[in-house]
Amino acid sequence: MRLRNVKNKEEILDNCSYLIKNPEDYKGKWQKLFANNNPIYLEIGMGKGKFLIENALKYPHINYIGIEKFDSIIARAIKKISSFSDIPNLRIIRMNALEIDKVFNKEISKLYLNFSDPWPKKRWYDRRLTSKIFLDKYDYIFKDTKKIEMKTDNEDLFIYSLETLSEKGYHLSDISFNYHKTHQDIIMSEYEERFAKAGKNVFHLFAQKK
Amino acid sequence: MRLRNVKNKEEILDNCSYLIKNPEDYKGKWQKLFANNNPIYLEIGMGKGKFLIENALKYPHINYIGIEKFDSIIARAIKKISSFSDIPNLRIIRMNALEIDKVFNKEISKLYLNFSDPWPKKRWYDRRLTSKIFLDKYDYIFKDTKKIEMKTDNEDLFIYSLETLSEKGYHLSDISFNYHKTHQDIIMSEYEERFAKAGKNVFHLFAQKK
Repeated sequence: MRLRNVKNKEEILDNCSYLIKNPEDYKGKWQKLFANNNPIYLEIGMGKGKFLIENALKYPHINYIGIEKFDSIIARAIKKISSFSDIPNLRIIRMNALEIDKVFNKEISKLYLNFSDPWPKKRWYDRRLTSKIFLDKYDYIFKDTKKIEMKTDNEDLFIYSLETLSEKGYHLSDISFNYHKTHQDIIMSEYEERFAKAGKNVFHLFAQKK
Repeated sequence: MRLRNVKNKEEILDNCSYLIKNPEDYKGKWQKLFANNNPIYLEIGMGKGKFLIENALKYPHINYIGIEKFDSIIARAIKKISSFSDIPNLRIIRMNALEIDKVFNKEISKLYLNFSDPWPKKRWYDRRLTSKIFLDKYDYIFKDTKKIEMKTDNEDLFIYSLETLSEKGYHLSDISFNYHKTHQDIIMSEYEERFAKAGKNVFHLFAQKK
């Protein structure tokens, strides 16, 4: 995502009740924070938050947490969230996904990876959110069955992910190299909407492991 | 596969006890033919039979059936089989795979598709062994859990198959876009051996459905 500076971003972040400032304190206690037993779905790289917000509004009986590492992007997501009245089943965290195992402990029911950074050079592959390094970390965050749903516009990242998920023992379904061809009525991220309009292929997979 | 004429192929076929001449008569009775309760694995497009023969020799407690539609190729497979002493857990059938639901009825435990014809033009896609037409037919042949293991050197056919199998509700695992990189000690078909020597990528998937 292009980083555009946002005026008063520190102030925006400070005053937002959706933003959890000390996420490590909630490790093992996220269900308590939401004050219900509904499943918690996590999006790593929530960007400006469209996908997360629309899901939270559409599915009030699921709790959604979004992770993003850049202040300026988080600030823009907060601006968007603020245009709605209270969304009690939504929280956001500013953090690096590498720290994820310090923040969650067997609490997540499903993980979304939407249009993650493809890190195209081979020497960067470990930074991909479906690298072995990350898949190993995800082992700690899932409550029971591990479920990952991924969309991307990058075929190279997609094929890489089919392989790393396979190697890690995931079973894959709903594999599509042109997802919008068969799925129109879906909640899209900002990126996805732009790609759909431009007629670009979107790749999709669902991965599951017991 | 290049079709080379084989001298006396009719005679070779007539005199071969491995070749089942009237396969429809055995529908529902294949287990009886093998006179045991071991699982039956099927290879569609067995070619010259290397993969099938080596498997049958290595795993005597699995029954193997190979299907091939061309007399001349079957004749060459028979010549190869004849160089071994008796292989009781092996049978071959000369037939078109489109007739498969007339020959088997809930009897197959696993299906192998090795280097099938990629039928590269779009108007031929229905002829691919992983088209919806064939996947629907396979529903009738599997004993319980449906299991398909596929290898190909054709990326386009591979991606097509990931999608058609997904659409049919299969769960995929062991997906690899360069299978030989991580799997050297495997039984290879004639084609596969040639591709491996030439350093060509071999694609692999395992599909399962309850």
